[in-house]
Amino acid sequence: MNFSKSKTSPKRNQNARILIIEDNSDHMVLIKSAVQKCFTDIEVVMASDEQTAIHYLDECIQTGLRPPQFILLDLYLPERENGWQILKSIKNLNPEIGQIPIVVFSNSACHEDITESYDRGATSYVVKPTDFTEWVDYFQTLKDYWWETVTLPNHQSIY
Amino acid sequence: MNFSKSKTSPKRNQNARILIIEDNSDHMVLIKSAVQKCFTDIEVVMASDEQTAIHYLDECIQTGLRPPQFILLDLYLPERENGWQILKSIKNLNPEIGQIPIVVFSNSACHEDITESYDRGATSYVVKPTDFTEWVDYFQTLKDYWWETVTLPNHQSIY
Repeated sequence: MNFSKSKTSPKRNQNARILIIEDNSDHMVLIKSAVQKCFTDIEVVMASDEQTAIHYLDECIQTGLRPPQFILLDLYLPERENGWQILKSIKNLNPEIGQIPIVVFSNSACHEDITESYDRGATSYVVKPTDFTEWVDYFQTLKDYWWETVTLPNHQSIY
Repeated sequence: MNFSKSKTSPKRNQNARILIIEDNSDHMVLIKSAVQKCFTDIEVVMASDEQTAIHYLDECIQTGLRPPQFILLDLYLPERENGWQILKSIKNLNPEIGQIPIVVFSNSACHEDITESYDRGATSYVVKPTDFTEWVDYFQTLKDYWWETVTLPNHQSIY
């Protein structure tokens, strides 16, 4: 197993669990720090490629482990076709996993990347922030929307 | 035609266009006021039933009018089956319309309503706020996420 987990101190947003699929190690460090700054109690599962991500989600299905409530997927892994392939694989795993919102994020603001991602089932598309402050702002907005406002699909699951 | 439009003064969020499908006239007034408080330049298209909503979206397709970037759909119209039917009809209209994020909102916090809505293609599910202040907070969060952070599918379309 080469996916890594981290957990911050408990306070609010109990049970928040995010799977982040990102192959750029610098971005991984930035993202992890920004997530931990915004969420007071979160489990972050990081995966750098399709095999690791699907293996983790498949393990959730097999063992009954509560799946992540949210998935962040870097599009270029390293090619956009890799990102789209992961999107497809996740959507087809099983109905519960297929419901998890997947936000595609990328340095690219290319129209085709954006529309194709929505077309293939991305919940939303975000152009990557350029520095740490923007990453923190981004995750704060993400938290306000998905955890404080929206009711996520697996809201009643037992941790 | 019995869908109504309103427009606030231009400043930011130019070109924001939302279709709101809601059959409760009190909620419609609250929603419209809250939206206009949060967005400084927005076109709100209101529809109270499936026929009106689909007619409007179909007109966008036929005339080349830019479709809404976002759809808010009340689930119980008046039965949840009506809401799910609209969700299906919108998703099947054409690929461009099918990409538009649809947020289902409802007084119901019933697990089945939530999971079924996600299963049928809702982008997210929101339990309706209970007073005007909460409606404003809700639309502020919605704006921060979908207009200030996310790149929406039809971001490059001409108004």
